[in-house]
Amino acid sequence: MSSTHINNLDTLQRLADIIESRKPANGGDPEKSYVSRLLHKGPDAFLKKIGEEATETVMAAKDVDHGGDPAKLVYEVADLWFHSMIALAHYGLKPSDVIEELARREGLSGLEEKALRKAQHRELTGD
Amino acid sequence: MSSTHINNLDTLQRLADIIESRKPANGGDPEKSYVSRLLHKGPDAFLKKIGEEATETVMAAKDVDHGGDPAKLVYEVADLWFHSMIALAHYGLKPSDVIEELARREGLSGLEEKALRKAQHRELTGD
Amino acid sequence: MSSTHINNLDTLQRLADIIESRKPANGGDPEKSYVSRLLHKGPDAFLKKIGEEATETVMAAKDVDHGGDPAKLVYEVADLWFHSMIALAHYGLKPSDVIEELARREGLSGLEEKALRKAQHRELTGD
Amino acid sequence: MSSTHINNLDTLQRLADIIESRKPANGGDPEKSYVSRLLHKGPDAFLKKIGEEATETVMAAKDVDHGGDPAKLVYEVADLWFHSMIALAHYGLKPSDVIEELARREGLSGLEEKALRKAQHRELTGD
Repeated sequence: MSSTHINNLDTLQRLADIIESRKPANGGDPEKSYVSRLLHKGPDAFLKKIGEEATETVMAAKDVDHGGDPAKLVYEVADLWFHSMIALAHYGLKPSDVIEELARREGLSGLEEKALRKAQHRELTGD
Repeated sequence: MSSTHINNLDTLQRLADIIESRKPANGGDPEKSYVSRLLHKGPDAFLKKIGEEATETVMAAKDVDHGGDPAKLVYEVADLWFHSMIALAHYGLKPSDVIEELARREGLSGLEEKALRKAQHRELTGD
Repeated sequence: MSSTHINNLDTLQRLADIIESRKPANGGDPEKSYVSRLLHKGPDAFLKKIGEEATETVMAAKDVDHGGDPAKLVYEVADLWFHSMIALAHYGLKPSDVIEELARREGLSGLEEKALRKAQHRELTGD
Repeated sequence: MSSTHINNLDTLQRLADIIESRKPANGGDPEKSYVSRLLHKGPDAFLKKIGEEATETVMAAKDVDHGGDPAKLVYEVADLWFHSMIALAHYGLKPSDVIEELARREGLSGLEEKALRKAQHRELTGD
């Protein structure tokens, strides 16, 4: 395992710690911090951002299809994940909870099993 | 650094490797694998899922506000990140690119600087 | 006012009536009708579709930017409005409620006043 | 047909006319008009709003499930349709194009036929 990987992981954890420290209850100042302001406003403020950043991710991807800069897509996915982490923090959850859920599905059998189950469910329900 | 952390990190990387192996060009079979099918169908198929999973994330969060299970929110964020990773793979990008972008913004000054710049931009443009 | 206009209007009203008749409480059969099935499943089923159709609208628009067929965009907006109408029906609302809200904002002063108020609000809050 | 209905229809058409007049090419001033500003900025600006307003619609609906005001849902759907109309205008399309597409699907057989075809398609493809 490379040090790059360790640094990458540290990043998610450090970001989560920073977000935690921005909670108004932890002394975050809505007048000075973007994260504090979103957390202070409450769920609708940061949940709206998740919808917005998802749309920006989709648009950036479509642009790459037509010669756009892939770095823009990376930027938008980072925004999407970042705002997801603000929501997680608000509800007392951590990025490692998400990573663990992904780990749970990991591996060929697990991943595809889940997908096949969903596809089979759709076949029965038409949804 | 705990072994949990190392395992967590391996997860993102392993998931990216699995998705990579599911590309039709790498032998992935759209008839057997959910990921291969999405990649085979092309961008609109998996980008649509990003919009859908973002909406499911928002709904799960709203449910937590009213007594719903936080595990459902973790599940939906995992779906959102997972489908983001399928998009990244299609465009030759990796989750570590996103983590590095997050690292770039990391730290109090960086994070808030970006947010303040955006807020100031909005003040000038009204957007 | 042309007969085309009258027919157009009838369309929204007739669609709303059809959706109303598809409610399980009104005899709609989830096994036979797509609308009944969505209404039977409950809010998350049709709300998810709103997020999905919004994403498909955005993708179709991006495609038009690159030579795609504008009819596809019309099709996706129709899907978006149609699923909005299913949600309205579930909550006892009608498309005419939306049209009336749009009428309320109508006219130069009204429209732009609202927008300017929102933009000014954003200038103050940075959101 | 009631005069309310006729007025409702006029609203969509008048809104489309107003949006048309706000195009920078038609003399709309991005410094004074919200619509002109969105149209001046180009597709990503108003398409992003469609994703955002769809998310706000979903949140308002979830709130109604828990005692929230249905008028808020009407307001958000109006915002969603309004921004859809800005996109339509940009691409030279009109709300009547959407209404006609809805009319095309109208009626029991048409609506459900389409839905059943889609459901059957999903049964075959698992999507």
